[in-house]
Amino acid sequence: MTTKKMAIIATKGTLDMAYPPFILASTAAALGYEVQIFFTFYGLQLLRKDLSDVKISPLANPAMPMPVPMPVLVAALPGMESMATMMMKDKIKKKGVASIEELRSACIEGGVKFIGCEMTVDLFDFKREDFIDGIEYGGAATFMKFAGETDVCLFI
Amino acid sequence: MTTKKMAIIATKGTLDMAYPPFILASTAAALGYEVQIFFTFYGLQLLRKDLSDVKISPLANPAMPMPVPMPVLVAALPGMESMATMMMKDKIKKKGVASIEELRSACIEGGVKFIGCEMTVDLFDFKREDFIDGIEYGGAATFMKFAGETDVCLFI
Amino acid sequence: MTTKKMAIIATKGTLDMAYPPFILASTAAALGYEVQIFFTFYGLQLLRKDLSDVKISPLANPAMPMPVPMPVLVAALPGMESMATMMMKDKIKKKGVASIEELRSACIEGGVKFIGCEMTVDLFDFKREDFIDGIEYGGAATFMKFAGETDVCLFI
Repeated sequence: MTTKKMAIIATKGTLDMAYPPFILASTAAALGYEVQIFFTFYGLQLLRKDLSDVKISPLANPAMPMPVPMPVLVAALPGMESMATMMMKDKIKKKGVASIEELRSACIEGGVKFIGCEMTVDLFDFKREDFIDGIEYGGAATFMKFAGETDVCLFI
Repeated sequence: MTTKKMAIIATKGTLDMAYPPFILASTAAALGYEVQIFFTFYGLQLLRKDLSDVKISPLANPAMPMPVPMPVLVAALPGMESMATMMMKDKIKKKGVASIEELRSACIEGGVKFIGCEMTVDLFDFKREDFIDGIEYGGAATFMKFAGETDVCLFI
Repeated sequence: MTTKKMAIIATKGTLDMAYPPFILASTAAALGYEVQIFFTFYGLQLLRKDLSDVKISPLANPAMPMPVPMPVLVAALPGMESMATMMMKDKIKKKGVASIEELRSACIEGGVKFIGCEMTVDLFDFKREDFIDGIEYGGAATFMKFAGETDVCLFI
């Protein structure tokens, strides 16, 4: 039996959209998949050693469940992004859901390969020393070679 | 000939992004595919019995075609989200496009399997009685087992 | 050896999310893939002859790397969308990254097939004469027939 393969392209860097790549990748790894995540655009924020700046925005997402209804202009006030982030992190903790740091570690322990998009690192002036160790850097062509052999390939 | 399979991970809960999962799933079902949709994060909003709160945001999407150009601060005014939603629904009706309720029903009639993400239901304090009947609840591991056998797997 | 196939559903019309479909499609085409992009919803904006209106929004994306931290209300001020777009285009140029016009041309030269979603063209009152030549128009059913045979299928 050949090993199943999964590839994920992680392009978002917000707290909510940080969960899907790490949950799906760690789950697939636990099921015996060979997994690679290609971090590009805002997704590169998820490779930082320090993830405390990963935030959620209460703006432009009327589907976000709110404890109290909040007018858009209030959601745009200074500090609301930090407040929404704090509330979400608090909820995650209370409900016993793993933090993104923990899920990222679970991916690494499960053998998930992290690839940073060279072009975006350069474009956004990211510094490689801000990122965790053990990352490979590459471009779309390298990644496509793996993606073309996968059973599941997701763009997040 | 084996039956083709499609899996969709529906993570968005806005009016515009409600269309792709239901259109693609009902189309695939009509073509004879076995289809499963895994509703997680904001996507769970699409499982509510009452879909009247599913809205569109005119913010942070400069690609949205507008009848008249609208400054960002105007788009942030109270009531603009509801107005944009009303205008979009009106357009959908006038153009003879199916509503999301109709497309969701078409999915169910076509045998599409709906799975609600247990973790997010709990995290966001959703109530199962607010959701339509006939939904299964499960986690990423259960879903991955189906996803790994599909011909098409999409993250929306 | 059979030719590998990739399908992309392009639903976003912002400057940042214009890159992934064109980069991945042109890369896959260069690697010998048969590629189709189905442009639907805001993704149809990427088919315009004139792409100068394709903008980036500094709102609702706390993961966007900013030269200086910017409060949300400042990001909502008139002109900030245009300024963020100008700054991003300037950076793209300075870093020697291809423009979306260039990447779109690379796709066409590489034989990537562009399909415009008939339903959305009609829904959003797009005019076919505003779009570049050589586009086919079709619906989800036509596209699914190709998607079901692909090695990689992405929803962007």
